[in-house]
Parts: sequence; C-alpha cells; structure tokens
Amino acid sequence: MNTQLSQIGEFALIRLIQKKAPRTRGVVQGIGDDAAVVSFREGRGASSLVLLTTDMMAEGVHFTRRMPARSIGHKALACNLSDIAAMGGVPRFAVVSLGVPADLRIRFVEEMYDGINRLAKRFSVAIVGGDTIRCPKITINVALLGEVKRKELVTRAGARKKDRIFVTGALGRSFKTGKHLSFIPRIAESRFLVGSFQPTAMIDISDGLIADLAHILEASRAGACLYEEKIPRTPQASLAEALGDGEDFELLFTLPYPQGERLRKIRNKRFTFYPIGEIVDQKEGITLVDRRGHRRTLAIRGFEHF
Amino acid sequence: MNTQLSQIGEFALIRLIQKKAPRTRGVVQGIGDDAAVVSFREGRGASSLVLLTTDMMAEGVHFTRRMPARSIGHKALACNLSDIAAMGGVPRFAVVSLGVPADLRIRFVEEMYDGINRLAKRFSVAIVGGDTIRCPKITINVALLGEVKRKELVTRAGARKKDRIFVTGALGRSFKTGKHLSFIPRIAESRFLVGSFQPTAMIDISDGLIADLAHILEASRAGACLYEEKIPRTPQASLAEALGDGEDFELLFTLPYPQGERLRKIRNKRFTFYPIGEIVDQKEGITLVDRRGHRRTLAIRGFEHF
Repeated sequence: MNTQLSQIGEFALIRLIQKKAPRTRGVVQGIGDDAAVVSFREGRGASSLVLLTTDMMAEGVHFTRRMPARSIGHKALACNLSDIAAMGGVPRFAVVSLGVPADLRIRFVEEMYDGINRLAKRFSVAIVGGDTIRCPKITINVALLGEVKRKELVTRAGARKKDRIFVTGALGRSFKTGKHLSFIPRIAESRFLVGSFQPTAMIDISDGLIADLAHILEASRAGACLYEEKIPRTPQASLAEALGDGEDFELLFTLPYPQGERLRKIRNKRFTFYPIGEIVDQKEGITLVDRRGHRRTLAIRGFEHF
Repeated sequence: MNTQLSQIGEFALIRLIQKKAPRTRGVVQGIGDDAAVVSFREGRGASSLVLLTTDMMAEGVHFTRRMPARSIGHKALACNLSDIAAMGGVPRFAVVSLGVPADLRIRFVEEMYDGINRLAKRFSVAIVGGDTIRCPKITINVALLGEVKRKELVTRAGARKKDRIFVTGALGRSFKTGKHLSFIPRIAESRFLVGSFQPTAMIDISDGLIADLAHILEASRAGACLYEEKIPRTPQASLAEALGDGEDFELLFTLPYPQGERLRKIRNKRFTFYPIGEIVDQKEGITLVDRRGHRRTLAIRGFEHF
C-alpha cells in the first residue's frame, strides 16, 4: 500500500477507515451518515439520542487570509450545524480547535470567533471548550453535539420507491457566489420537517446534488428520477453546476408520496421546499428527465476532496 | 489589537475566547477545565453528565513524519482520554478529523488509525465518525465524548486547605524519552480513585507540574506546599524538568487529609500514587521545601504553546 491518497480519493479513504473503526455498545449509527448517533443509556428505552459531528477546514484549501475572518468562523460552525439538521436534530454544544501561526494577528482570531459566536447564539449553541495550537497554516476544527428524539431521527437509509424527493433551496455556484461562506444552515427547515412530516431519508448537499443523492440511494438501496426543470438553480448556474457543484448545504430529503403531496400544497411563508423527483427501483440508477421528456441515465460524480 | 499571538501566549488567548463564548442551558462546566461538562436533561435530576473534550496536533509542531505513524495516532486519542480521566469520567465515543497532504502514503494514514484504534479498543471507545480533508501538513483532531456520574465528577475547583496532593507517576523529560508519544492515559487510576475516594480537584499534567498545579490553585483559590524529595522524577530528570516539563499526562489530584492518609497506606499492586505535598492558604502561593527544610516560593511557569 504505497499508494498515495490522491490516487484513491476521499470516499475510498473513508471506507477504509470505516472498516476498521472500533464499535461498542451505544452506537446507533457510526461512520457513514452526516452525524454519528449514540446513546448513553442502555437498551432501547432512551427516547432521546445524542448526535456528534465534526468538520475541519484549512487555510489555502478551504479559505484564504484574504477572506473575512468572520465568514471563516461562520462556515466552520455552519457546516456542522448543517450535519445536525440533516439528521433531524437540535444542535447544543460545540468545541472549537484552532491551529494558528504565531505571527497571526489577534484581531483575526477574535473575528473568527465572532463569526462562530454569532451563529452559535442564533441557534442557541454553547461553545464549551476547545484547543488552541501553533500551526504553520490556520486550521479550524469544530465538533458539535446535538440531540434528537428517537422518533425524529432521519438517516440516509430510509428512502422507499415512490417517495418524493425535495431540496430546500437553489443549487450551484456556491463557491463563485460566496454562499459557501455565508449560508444559514437549514436547522429551522429541518425542525419544521421532522415536527410535521416523517422524512424517510435526509442529507445535506456538501458534495453536490448527484453525489449526495447517490449517498442516499446507496444507503437506501434505491434509484431516483429527477426532473431537470424542477431543480432550483442559483441565478446563472448551469444544469451541470446545479447537479455537480459542492457546498450548497441545502437539505435533500425524501417523503412518502402522500406527505410529499401535502408538503407541495403547503403555503409556508418561512420556507420553500422544491420537489425535484421521486425514488424508483435501485436497478434504474439515477435518471434525469429533460423538459421534452427525454430520459438519460447519469454518471455519479461529485466533489472529491483529494 | 494588531498584537500577534506570539506576544500574548496561549492562556491569554483562551481567556479572551472564554469571555465571549456563548453559554446556554445545560452547560455545567464550560471552557476552563480539562473537559466540558454538559447535561442533555433539564434540571438537576440527571445522575449522569456528558463530557466533551478535543485536541489538535500538527506536523512540524507536535510530531514529524519520521515518527512512527501509530504513535502519532495513539497520542492524538491519548491526550483526549487523559482529559476525560482528569474529570473522573468514562470515555465513550470519538470522532477523528484528519488533514492530509495529497502525496501522503495510504500506509501512513492506515498506521495512524491503527494507533487510534488499538487505544480505542483498550478503553472500549467507539470511533463513530470524522472528517478527512486535504491539508498542506498532516493535522489531526480528535473530539471525545465521555460520561461521568454527577457524584464522581471532579473539576479543578475543589481543593481545600490541608488536602493532600498526589501524582500518578514520574515527571519530566517526556519529550526526550518519547513518553509523550506512548503514554497510557490514566483512565484506570481515575476510575479507581473516584470509585473509592472523593478527589477534591484533579487535572492532567500537560503544561507541567507547576503550571497545572497553578490551574488547580487558581480555580480552587488555594496555595500549595510541595516537598522536593517526594516528587517522583523520570530517571535523569532534574528537579527543574520534573517541575516544568510538559506532556507527562500523569494525573495531579487532591484528597481530604484523612482520605490521603488512607490512600498512602493502600498497597495497590496495580497503581502507585505519590503524595507530593499539601494544599495551604491561597496567599502563600506555591512553596517548595528542599530536603534540608529550606523553603522557597516558586514562580509559576509552564509550557506555552506559542
């Protein structure tokens, strides 16, 4: 195994790590969803479960020092909040690790924390600890604890044939528009959904619509049919950008057909949910239907980090 | 605030972050101890509390690629286990974030995870998730969830006058001997202590004996008197090294006088606890008594990360 990481890609690395990861009692969902789901109480009696997720960002890869420090801090927490939203949970407590070069200005660090703290306050998340180290490049890692009622937990594995597929917002060009630095994680939308509906599967779109849909389909052993003209696009985004660009951090979820019909008819002033297709048999893979009714099968591609 | 981080040091930075960190319901102990203590259940009814801690390490600062990859992984988890031990808790679930250069060999990553996984198995910790990103230097962050019974929780703030001060092992030269890469976190010792005694304060020695004792004394508003010849030293370690060197990851704790006498008399084959002094009035600061009975007041110094 002298292979370099650039040759195998992130997903292969995750599978490799996942295979060997130690498991113990209390693990409801380990590696392989937006957040881990654990239980501190024995047996199936606990009505509330604990969610744990983490995200790392590095200077020169995910951001530069020329970007607003507040936005960098904002994004570091927002990615994690988005993961908790994707599980149907409520974010509660976070710890922040920060690697900083010794010559960095304190003002920059303060502004990063301002970005974190503002977003934390908005969603009633407490920053309860962390670590600060010296590091050649600015590196920031947030680990976020959340909670979810057992009956409101949504994983990637539950989409069933005929379920409707929805997204919470426009897709594509997140890096070009700066959305990836300023997005508001879809916690409120998720709370509304799990409170009033029973989503069968959910994920946040970080790798790209098709790549993240593929994660749901793999976990749910299903296929999907998407309607080109129904996919909401960021202004100026091409179809390819809407399908393939990463870091939109919208929620992608499925609802049983009758609930999907109900959601489509709801005129909710706070949220917009876009129906983009439906779940089909696994052997059909992902089909895209254009406005003339022509169908094509999509190759699965997304955003690989290496 | 154009000041650079190198000018203010790590502890000043932590205080700055601590002051502005958002707090919410459920936070029993926020920033300022070895691990955060939180409660998911309302009120004081919960008999069990949740611990959360995190540690970050970077290539070129905490380790190099010439060190065994297994040891790097081992240390990344061990530091966090040590924090949970210092609170009297039981470690349960961890997430691992890894930043890796694209040219790194997969073998190196596999071995880092081997180091993490072996130690995780030893202490029945499940690795439940993580993040992998591209990064110019290898960077590893572990966040660890633990639990602690409310009556077994030990913080830094509880040492009282006349309490005995103990450490769990020899101090000094951790970097020179390689102990900092291979130490076994004092989870078993901590479990024994909180099960059979009531430690009034506890911390793990990461910054150095005097610096970490100072953390206990500050939180407990107390002073301490240490006996030079009682401080267990690593072979070849000078007194200055035993007092000042960082990363020994031994536990430093205090017991009420009668319990301290009881612990001293116990002949426990598994553990050795070294009585090194006692808690005194805060205004006396830290006093060191040499073998001739000469007393001197110590300046507080430790291991600053910037």
